[in-house]
Amino acid sequence: MTLPDRFHPAVSAALSSIDASALRHVFFVACGGSLSIMHPAKFMLDQHGALPSDVYNAAEFVARAPKRLGADSLVILCSMTGTTKETTAAAKYAREKGATTIGLTVEPGSPLGTAVDFPVKFEAPYTTGTPIDARDSNYSIIYQIVMGLVAATGGEDLTQPLIDSLCNLQAAIDRAQDTYAPLWDRYAEHFAKQDVVYTMASGAAYGAAYSFAICVLMEMQWINSQAIHSNEFFHGPFEVLDETRCFVLMKGLDSTRELDERADTFLHRFGKAENILVLDAAKLDLTGIDERFQGNVVPLIFFDTLWRFIYKVAAFREQVMLDGRRYMKKLSDY
Amino acid sequence: MTLPDRFHPAVSAALSSIDASALRHVFFVACGGSLSIMHPAKFMLDQHGALPSDVYNAAEFVARAPKRLGADSLVILCSMTGTTKETTAAAKYAREKGATTIGLTVEPGSPLGTAVDFPVKFEAPYTTGTPIDARDSNYSIIYQIVMGLVAATGGEDLTQPLIDSLCNLQAAIDRAQDTYAPLWDRYAEHFAKQDVVYTMASGAAYGAAYSFAICVLMEMQWINSQAIHSNEFFHGPFEVLDETRCFVLMKGLDSTRELDERADTFLHRFGKAENILVLDAAKLDLTGIDERFQGNVVPLIFFDTLWRFIYKVAAFREQVMLDGRRYMKKLSDY
Repeated sequence: MTLPDRFHPAVSAALSSIDASALRHVFFVACGGSLSIMHPAKFMLDQHGALPSDVYNAAEFVARAPKRLGADSLVILCSMTGTTKETTAAAKYAREKGATTIGLTVEPGSPLGTAVDFPVKFEAPYTTGTPIDARDSNYSIIYQIVMGLVAATGGEDLTQPLIDSLCNLQAAIDRAQDTYAPLWDRYAEHFAKQDVVYTMASGAAYGAAYSFAICVLMEMQWINSQAIHSNEFFHGPFEVLDETRCFVLMKGLDSTRELDERADTFLHRFGKAENILVLDAAKLDLTGIDERFQGNVVPLIFFDTLWRFIYKVAAFREQVMLDGRRYMKKLSDY
Repeated sequence: MTLPDRFHPAVSAALSSIDASALRHVFFVACGGSLSIMHPAKFMLDQHGALPSDVYNAAEFVARAPKRLGADSLVILCSMTGTTKETTAAAKYAREKGATTIGLTVEPGSPLGTAVDFPVKFEAPYTTGTPIDARDSNYSIIYQIVMGLVAATGGEDLTQPLIDSLCNLQAAIDRAQDTYAPLWDRYAEHFAKQDVVYTMASGAAYGAAYSFAICVLMEMQWINSQAIHSNEFFHGPFEVLDETRCFVLMKGLDSTRELDERADTFLHRFGKAENILVLDAAKLDLTGIDERFQGNVVPLIFFDTLWRFIYKVAAFREQVMLDGRRYMKKLSDY
């Protein structure tokens, strides 16, 4: 198959080498923040493709040993530094089982990069401190892989509108910062005082809510959290809502938006507006993003813009971002 | 195919009517506590069968509209009362798409029971107040469906040892109450004072941790919580651990046990023993349960025994179980 010129060269190389027609299953495998991007990848594949897929934490994947894993499987892994031991072990395990492996990392020479059949380098702004173009992010790359697979397995070939959209994504993110900036100022000081802040989302955005809950609120700010699915909210979790409880609600643009809208209505009926930070994707200027992919890119915009928010929260908490850890990267023996 | 005599008659009837060889996908669909049993069902299918499967919240399932859903799909749904609107809507949606539907409920005449091709009645102790046999529980029935499907799709026929095990399960649960009772007395008063209690598990037990977090701690006791996967713990959430934070850790017996053991070690290294309630399945007397299914039945034992614990917690909080709700079953317009 021929992929558009602006596709990531390593993605094009990998997809050209793989016999997609022989694939029977896709496994999306990673840990923590890298696992969070696998949920929207599966959401995209579910809606566009015929291939079945699973999303697994890397250690769970190896210990579970799914019977379907074999020579007709594609295993897509991600670890920012490429040093996550569980993810590297999962890559090795998948290859032993005969599967084809693609590994996303910022360092192709890393343990993960060298353990997979096809390493794909992405850019991450939070390691280098220098701005990146969202086209080079892990989200962008995994979406290119997914829509490439869809096209290669008999689905509609939407790779051109996808890459056009991804090339226009950074400008949309920059505009989103301006759109949401007033929210940061309104909510930062209040949220900084909280011991518990929940996140909520559905569909393509659930992974962003998960990542913000476990990697940002819990890991970097030691704020208790949970990423609540917007409909699961009504089947238990909503009972913790009162006039004091704080939530970050992500209202996406994909086909699950009405789930978020129902949650929004309930949050504002029984909670207080000052405790409910709503990121509404309908307020964004998504010029240049194809309508068919707007729902898919929104979580990246949510997550990227929320970094500005959490830096403001951190300033009020006097907790320095990334160094605000007790264990991660400080202990080596666990 | 011939299923063992003691299989649930409605399960046998459903599996006899379905052409399993024509199935290409299984969807496990429900909300909240009923969704929690779908995770161990998928775990069992992943380890024994060749059929791909997905677990979805019912509203997410309909809104997502997976492309694979069609005439070659089996959709297994569950709602205790059979009145969960999202789950009934999901059953109707699945049938419109041509899929075959099985619905688990305590009331076959309910909206869900009448919306599906094959209603299957189960027993739940918390509605009637009278004890049930675990062989008649939702867990037992969904396991019978899964292993019936495995046998019908070319996998090893383990339906006889499965049903033998399920018939011996209630006695194992009764013994487990005695095993764990000293823990309830040791931890109930202290946990009753907490504003945040996390649950943790992996593999077959993750669903039980999810259910205990959202349906018991959050819904009935208004205690903030999250079901943390035992390996995801190390990729963010562990930073909230200090000498004051409380956890319920479920150490299972399935192939993911080592993930729980690693979490246990870390919790006791940096947390305090009085805050860490460990349910260790290795301490249970599982006589009569086939070794191949011990890991699968353990989460049911965990969840069932933990009800005794939470009643003790509730007594200290002066919050009456099941009536301790603000919204669920008290509001009708949300």
